Amino acid sequence: MTNQLTMYQASVPVFIKMLNNLSAIITKATAHAEAKKIEQSVFINARLSPDMFAFARQVQIATDTAKGCVARLAGNEVPNYADTETTFQELQDRIHTTVAYLQSFKPEQIDGSEDNTITLKLRGNPVVFTGKNNLLGFALPNFLFHVTTAYAILRHNGVDIGKPDFLGNLT
Amino acid sequence: MTNQLTMYQASVPVFIKMLNNLSAIITKATAHAEAKKIEQSVFINARLSPDMFAFARQVQIATDTAKGCVARLAGNEVPNYADTETTFQELQDRIHTTVAYLQSFKPEQIDGSEDNTITLKLRGNPVVFTGKNNLLGFALPNFLFHVTTAYAILRHNGVDIGKPDFLGNLT
Repeated sequence: MTNQLTMYQASVPVFIKMLNNLSAIITKATAHAEAKKIEQSVFINARLSPDMFAFARQVQIATDTAKGCVARLAGNEVPNYADTETTFQELQDRIHTTVAYLQSFKPEQIDGSEDNTITLKLRGNPVVFTGKNNLLGFALPNFLFHVTTAYAILRHNGVDIGKPDFLGNLT
Repeated sequence: MTNQLTMYQASVPVFIKMLNNLSAIITKATAHAEAKKIEQSVFINARLSPDMFAFARQVQIATDTAKGCVARLAGNEVPNYADTETTFQELQDRIHTTVAYLQSFKPEQIDGSEDNTITLKLRGNPVVFTGKNNLLGFALPNFLFHVTTAYAILRHNGVDIGKPDFLGNLT
Protein backbone atom coordinates (compact mmCIF):
# COMPACT_ATOMS: atom_id res chain seq x y z
CA MET A 1 0.00 0.00 0.00
CA THR A 2 2.89 2.40 -0.65
CA ASN A 3 0.68 4.57 -2.84
CA GLN A 4 -2.10 4.90 -0.29
CA LEU A 5 -3.85 8.23 -0.05
CA THR A 6 -2.33 10.50 2.59
CA MET A 7 -3.58 13.47 4.56
CA TYR A 8 -0.98 15.65 2.84
CA GLN A 9 -2.15 14.65 -0.63
CA ALA A 10 -5.79 15.30 0.27
CA SER A 11 -5.05 18.77 1.63
CA VAL A 12 -1.98 20.82 0.68
CA PRO A 13 -1.83 20.22 -3.12
CA VAL A 14 -5.62 20.50 -3.43
CA PHE A 15 -5.67 23.87 -1.66
CA ILE A 16 -2.65 25.14 -3.62
CA LYS A 17 -4.08 24.14 -6.99
CA MET A 18 -7.48 25.72 -6.36
CA LEU A 19 -5.90 28.90 -4.95
CA ASN A 20 -3.74 29.19 -8.07
CA ASN A 21 -6.88 28.73 -10.19
CA LEU A 22 -8.59 31.49 -8.17
CA SER A 23 -5.58 33.72 -8.75
CA ALA A 24 -5.80 33.14 -12.52
CA ILE A 25 -9.53 33.94 -12.38
CA ILE A 26 -8.77 37.23 -10.60
CA THR A 27 -6.21 38.03 -13.30
CA LYS A 28 -8.99 37.64 -15.89
CA ALA A 29 -11.33 39.78 -13.78
CA THR A 30 -8.66 42.48 -13.53
CA ALA A 31 -8.26 42.57 -17.32
CA HIS A 32 -12.05 42.58 -17.76
CA ALA A 33 -12.50 45.52 -15.38
CA GLU A 34 -9.77 47.45 -17.16
CA ALA A 35 -11.11 46.70 -20.66
CA LYS A 36 -14.66 47.68 -19.70
CA LYS A 37 -13.50 50.66 -17.60
CA ILE A 38 -15.34 49.35 -14.54
CA GLU A 39 -13.98 50.19 -11.09
CA GLN A 40 -12.50 47.09 -9.42
CA SER A 41 -14.51 47.92 -6.32
CA VAL A 42 -17.71 47.05 -8.20
CA PHE A 43 -16.56 43.43 -8.38
CA ILE A 44 -14.77 43.39 -5.04
CA ASN A 45 -17.90 44.57 -3.20
CA ALA A 46 -20.35 42.50 -5.26
CA ARG A 47 -22.55 39.88 -3.55
CA LEU A 48 -24.98 37.24 -4.81
CA SER A 49 -27.46 38.18 -2.11
CA PRO A 50 -27.61 41.13 0.33
CA ASP A 51 -26.85 38.83 3.28
CA MET A 52 -24.01 36.92 1.62
CA PHE A 53 -20.39 38.02 1.84
CA ALA A 54 -18.89 40.20 -0.88
CA PHE A 55 -16.18 38.97 -3.26
CA ALA A 56 -13.20 40.13 -1.15
CA ARG A 57 -14.54 38.32 1.92
CA GLN A 58 -15.04 35.12 -0.09
CA VAL A 59 -11.34 35.19 -1.03
CA GLN A 60 -10.35 35.98 2.55
CA ILE A 61 -12.35 33.05 3.95
CA ALA A 62 -11.08 30.66 1.26
CA THR A 63 -7.48 31.48 2.18
CA ASP A 64 -8.29 31.38 5.92
CA THR A 65 -9.86 27.94 5.59
CA ALA A 66 -6.86 26.55 3.70
CA LYS A 67 -4.15 27.94 6.01
CA GLY A 68 -6.19 27.13 9.12
CA CYS A 69 -6.76 23.52 8.15
CA VAL A 70 -3.14 22.81 7.22
CA ALA A 71 -1.70 24.63 10.23
CA ARG A 72 -4.00 22.72 12.60
CA LEU A 73 -3.28 19.34 10.99
CA ALA A 74 0.43 20.05 11.53
CA GLY A 75 -0.20 21.26 15.09
CA ASN A 76 1.11 24.74 14.26
CA GLU A 77 -0.17 28.16 15.24
CA VAL A 78 -2.51 29.52 12.51
CA PRO A 79 -1.02 32.67 10.95
CA ASN A 80 -3.27 35.71 11.17
CA TYR A 81 -3.84 37.87 8.09
CA ALA A 82 -5.41 41.33 8.38
CA ASP A 83 -8.64 41.44 6.35
CA THR A 84 -7.89 44.75 4.67
CA GLU A 85 -7.77 43.91 0.94
CA THR A 86 -9.63 46.37 -1.31
CA THR A 87 -8.04 45.73 -4.72
CA PHE A 88 -7.53 42.71 -6.95
CA GLN A 89 -3.76 43.07 -6.46
CA GLU A 90 -4.12 42.93 -2.69
CA LEU A 91 -6.28 39.82 -2.98
CA GLN A 92 -3.65 38.29 -5.28
CA ASP A 93 -1.00 39.08 -2.67
CA ARG A 94 -3.08 37.34 0.00
CA ILE A 95 -3.51 34.27 -2.20
CA HIS A 96 0.22 34.19 -2.99
CA THR A 97 1.12 34.53 0.69
CA THR A 98 -1.23 31.65 1.49
CA VAL A 99 0.18 29.45 -1.29
CA ALA A 100 3.75 30.14 -0.10
CA TYR A 101 2.70 29.27 3.45
CA LEU A 102 1.09 25.99 2.30
CA GLN A 103 4.17 25.17 0.19
CA SER A 104 6.33 25.48 3.30
CA PHE A 105 4.80 22.25 4.72
CA LYS A 106 6.45 18.90 4.10
CA PRO A 107 4.28 15.77 3.76
CA GLU A 108 5.63 14.36 7.03
CA GLN A 109 4.21 17.36 8.93
CA ILE A 110 0.67 16.52 7.79
CA ASP A 111 0.70 12.76 7.32
CA GLY A 112 -0.55 10.72 10.25
CA SER A 113 -2.87 13.54 11.38
CA GLU A 114 -6.03 11.49 10.63
CA ASP A 115 -7.02 11.13 14.28
CA ASN A 116 -5.52 14.31 15.72
CA THR A 117 -8.00 16.26 17.81
CA ILE A 118 -8.85 19.62 16.27
CA THR A 119 -11.13 22.00 18.13
CA LEU A 120 -12.62 24.91 16.22
CA LYS A 121 -14.85 27.66 17.50
CA LEU A 122 -17.65 27.84 14.95
CA ARG A 123 -20.52 30.28 15.44
CA GLY A 124 -19.45 30.71 19.05
CA ASN A 125 -19.41 27.01 19.97
CA PRO A 126 -16.41 24.70 20.18
CA VAL A 127 -16.61 21.83 17.66
CA VAL A 128 -14.26 18.88 18.19
CA PHE A 129 -13.09 17.14 15.01
CA THR A 130 -10.69 14.37 14.16
CA GLY A 131 -8.09 15.55 11.64
CA LYS A 132 -9.78 13.46 8.98
CA ASN A 133 -13.27 14.86 9.68
CA ASN A 134 -11.93 18.38 9.86
CA LEU A 135 -10.43 18.05 6.40
CA LEU A 136 -13.21 16.12 4.66
CA GLY A 137 -16.31 17.31 6.52
CA PHE A 138 -15.41 20.94 7.08
CA ALA A 139 -12.29 22.41 5.49
CA LEU A 140 -12.52 21.06 1.92
CA PRO A 141 -16.26 21.74 1.50
CA ASN A 142 -15.96 25.17 3.15
CA PHE A 143 -12.90 26.12 1.09
CA LEU A 144 -14.51 25.02 -2.17
CA PHE A 145 -17.74 26.79 -1.19
CA HIS A 146 -15.89 30.10 -0.98
CA VAL A 147 -13.78 29.58 -4.12
CA THR A 148 -16.94 28.66 -6.05
CA THR A 149 -18.86 31.63 -4.66
CA ALA A 150 -16.00 34.01 -5.57
CA TYR A 151 -16.09 32.55 -9.10
CA ALA A 152 -19.91 32.84 -9.22
CA ILE A 153 -19.87 36.50 -8.16
CA LEU A 154 -17.50 37.36 -11.03
CA ARG A 155 -19.46 35.23 -13.50
CA HIS A 156 -22.74 36.79 -12.40
CA ASN A 157 -21.16 40.19 -13.06
CA GLY A 158 -20.11 39.36 -16.60
CA VAL A 159 -16.47 38.27 -16.31
CA ASP A 160 -15.73 35.82 -19.13
CA ILE A 161 -14.61 32.76 -17.16
CA GLY A 162 -15.73 29.13 -17.32
CA LYS A 163 -15.43 25.78 -15.61
CA PRO A 164 -11.93 25.15 -17.06
CA ASP A 165 -10.73 28.24 -15.17
CA PHE A 166 -12.23 26.86 -11.96
CA LEU A 167 -10.84 23.34 -12.33
CA GLY A 168 -7.48 24.29 -13.84
CA ASN A 169 -5.07 21.66 -15.10
CA LEU A 170 -6.81 18.32 -14.56
CA THR A 171 -4.00 15.79 -14.19
CA MET B 1 -1.25 3.31 10.42
CA THR B 2 -4.57 1.46 10.79
CA ASN B 3 -6.50 4.70 10.78
CA GLN B 4 -4.90 5.97 7.59
CA LEU B 5 -7.11 7.92 5.22
CA THR B 6 -8.68 5.71 2.55
CA MET B 7 -10.12 6.35 -0.90
CA TYR B 8 -13.53 5.24 0.39
CA GLN B 9 -13.48 7.73 3.27
CA ALA B 10 -12.46 10.57 0.96
CA SER B 11 -15.26 9.85 -1.52
CA VAL B 12 -18.45 7.94 -0.62
CA PRO B 13 -19.32 9.49 2.79
CA VAL B 14 -18.34 12.99 1.58
CA PHE B 15 -20.63 12.73 -1.46
CA ILE B 16 -23.48 11.23 0.60
CA LYS B 17 -23.30 13.88 3.29
CA MET B 18 -23.27 16.80 0.86
CA LEU B 19 -26.09 15.27 -1.22
CA ASN B 20 -28.19 14.90 1.93
CA ASN B 21 -27.44 18.53 2.76
CA LEU B 22 -28.52 19.52 -0.77
CA SER B 23 -31.73 17.53 -0.30
CA ALA B 24 -32.47 19.39 2.96
CA ILE B 25 -31.81 22.69 1.16
CA ILE B 26 -34.31 21.72 -1.55
CA THR B 27 -36.85 20.89 1.16
CA LYS B 28 -36.44 24.45 2.47
CA ALA B 29 -36.75 25.85 -1.06
CA THR B 30 -39.94 23.84 -1.59
CA ALA B 31 -41.50 25.27 1.57
CA HIS B 32 -40.34 28.77 0.61
CA ALA B 33 -41.90 28.52 -2.86
CA GLU B 34 -45.17 27.30 -1.38
CA ALA B 35 -45.28 29.96 1.34
CA LYS B 36 -44.55 32.75 -1.14
CA LYS B 37 -46.80 31.25 -3.82
CA ILE B 38 -43.95 31.21 -6.35
CA GLU B 39 -43.95 28.53 -9.06
CA GLN B 40 -41.18 25.99 -8.43
CA SER B 41 -40.11 26.41 -12.05
CA VAL B 42 -38.91 29.93 -11.24
CA PHE B 43 -36.22 28.45 -8.99
CA ILE B 44 -35.63 25.32 -11.05
CA ASN B 45 -34.91 27.36 -14.19
CA ALA B 46 -32.98 30.11 -12.41
CA ARG B 47 -29.34 30.83 -13.33
CA LEU B 48 -26.64 33.10 -11.94
CA SER B 49 -25.64 34.13 -15.45
CA PRO B 50 -27.32 33.58 -18.86
CA ASP B 51 -24.56 31.18 -19.92
CA MET B 52 -24.45 29.19 -16.67
CA PHE B 53 -26.59 26.12 -16.10
CA ALA B 54 -29.96 26.43 -14.38
CA PHE B 55 -30.67 25.00 -10.93
CA ALA B 56 -31.96 21.61 -12.12
CA ARG B 57 -28.86 21.06 -14.25
CA GLN B 58 -26.60 21.92 -11.29
CA VAL B 59 -28.27 19.17 -9.25
CA GLN B 60 -28.05 16.73 -12.18
CA ILE B 61 -24.32 17.36 -12.65
CA ALA B 62 -23.62 17.14 -8.90
CA THR B 63 -25.26 13.70 -8.77
CA ASP B 64 -23.58 12.64 -12.04
CA THR B 65 -20.16 13.61 -10.71
CA ALA B 66 -20.65 11.66 -7.47
CA LYS B 67 -21.99 8.46 -9.04
CA GLY B 68 -19.50 8.64 -11.92
CA CYS B 69 -16.50 9.03 -9.63
CA VAL B 70 -17.46 6.21 -7.26
CA ALA B 71 -18.49 3.82 -10.05
CA ARG B 72 -15.19 4.42 -11.88
CA LEU B 73 -13.07 4.00 -8.75
CA ALA B 74 -14.79 0.63 -8.21
CA GLY B 75 -14.36 -0.30 -11.88
CA ASN B 76 -18.14 -0.47 -12.39
CA GLU B 77 -20.33 0.72 -15.24
CA VAL B 78 -21.65 4.24 -14.48
CA PRO B 79 -25.47 4.17 -14.15
CA ASN B 80 -27.26 6.50 -16.54
CA TYR B 81 -30.02 8.79 -15.25
CA ALA B 82 -32.38 10.57 -17.68
CA ASP B 83 -32.06 14.33 -17.23
CA THR B 84 -35.78 15.01 -17.15
CA GLU B 85 -36.42 16.52 -13.69
CA THR B 86 -38.69 19.58 -13.67
CA THR B 87 -39.88 19.70 -10.04
CA PHE B 88 -38.21 19.80 -6.64
CA GLN B 89 -39.67 16.36 -5.88
CA GLU B 90 -38.11 14.88 -9.01
CA LEU B 91 -34.76 16.41 -8.05
CA GLN B 92 -35.14 14.96 -4.55
CA ASP B 93 -35.83 11.56 -6.12
CA ARG B 94 -32.66 11.85 -8.19
CA ILE B 95 -30.61 12.75 -5.13
CA HIS B 96 -32.11 9.87 -3.13
CA THR B 97 -31.44 7.41 -5.98
CA THR B 98 -27.84 8.63 -6.09
CA VAL B 99 -27.40 8.36 -2.31
CA ALA B 100 -28.82 4.79 -2.35
CA TYR B 101 -26.42 3.92 -5.18
CA LEU B 102 -23.44 5.33 -3.28
CA GLN B 103 -24.52 3.52 -0.10
CA SER B 104 -24.45 0.22 -2.02
CA PHE B 105 -20.62 0.39 -2.18
CA LYS B 106 -18.51 -1.28 0.46
CA PRO B 107 -15.14 0.26 1.44
CA GLU B 108 -13.24 -2.68 -0.07
CA GLN B 109 -14.68 -1.86 -3.52
CA ILE B 110 -13.14 1.63 -3.43
CA ASP B 111 -10.04 1.23 -1.28
CA GLY B 112 -6.80 0.61 -3.13
CA SER B 113 -8.04 2.55 -6.19
CA GLU B 114 -5.41 5.30 -5.72
CA ASP B 115 -3.49 4.41 -8.87
CA ASN B 116 -6.27 2.94 -11.00
CA THR B 117 -6.36 4.43 -14.49
CA ILE B 118 -9.54 6.40 -15.12
CA THR B 119 -10.16 7.90 -18.55
CA LEU B 120 -12.85 10.56 -18.87
CA LYS B 121 -14.01 12.33 -21.98
CA LEU B 122 -14.09 15.99 -20.99
CA ARG B 123 -15.06 18.62 -23.53
CA GLY B 124 -14.53 16.07 -26.29
CA ASN B 125 -11.01 15.02 -25.28
CA PRO B 126 -9.96 11.95 -23.31
CA VAL B 127 -8.28 12.85 -20.01
CA VAL B 128 -6.33 10.10 -18.23
CA PHE B 129 -6.33 10.30 -14.43
CA THR B 130 -5.06 8.17 -11.59
CA GLY B 131 -7.89 7.27 -9.19
CA LYS B 132 -6.41 9.66 -6.65
CA ASN B 133 -6.18 12.58 -9.09
CA ASN B 134 -9.64 11.89 -10.43
CA LEU B 135 -11.09 12.16 -6.93
CA LEU B 136 -9.04 15.09 -5.60
CA GLY B 137 -8.36 17.11 -8.76
CA PHE B 138 -11.62 16.65 -10.59
CA ALA B 139 -14.56 14.89 -8.90
CA LEU B 140 -14.55 16.56 -5.45
CA PRO B 141 -13.99 20.12 -6.73
CA ASN B 142 -16.50 19.63 -9.57
CA PHE B 143 -19.10 18.08 -7.28
CA LEU B 144 -18.74 20.85 -4.68
CA PHE B 145 -18.81 23.47 -7.45
CA HIS B 146 -22.26 22.29 -8.52
CA VAL B 147 -23.64 21.83 -4.99
CA THR B 148 -22.43 25.35 -4.10
CA THR B 149 -23.85 26.83 -7.30
CA ALA B 150 -27.23 25.14 -6.66
CA TYR B 151 -27.17 26.66 -3.16
CA ALA B 152 -26.14 30.06 -4.53
CA ILE B 153 -28.98 30.11 -7.09
CA LEU B 154 -31.56 29.55 -4.33
CA ARG B 155 -29.88 32.06 -2.02
CA HIS B 156 -29.71 34.65 -4.80
CA ASN B 157 -33.46 34.13 -5.29
CA GLY B 158 -34.34 34.72 -1.67
CA VAL B 159 -34.55 31.26 -0.12
CA ASP B 160 -33.66 31.55 3.58
CA ILE B 161 -30.69 29.17 3.80
CA GLY B 162 -27.22 29.63 5.24
CA LYS B 163 -23.80 28.04 5.53
CA PRO B 164 -24.98 25.57 8.25
CA ASP B 165 -27.41 24.13 5.67
CA PHE B 166 -24.57 23.72 3.18
CA LEU B 167 -22.12 22.13 5.62
CA GLY B 168 -24.65 20.07 7.57
CA ASN B 169 -23.63 18.15 10.68
CA LEU B 170 -19.94 18.88 11.21
CA THR B 171 -18.60 15.89 13.10
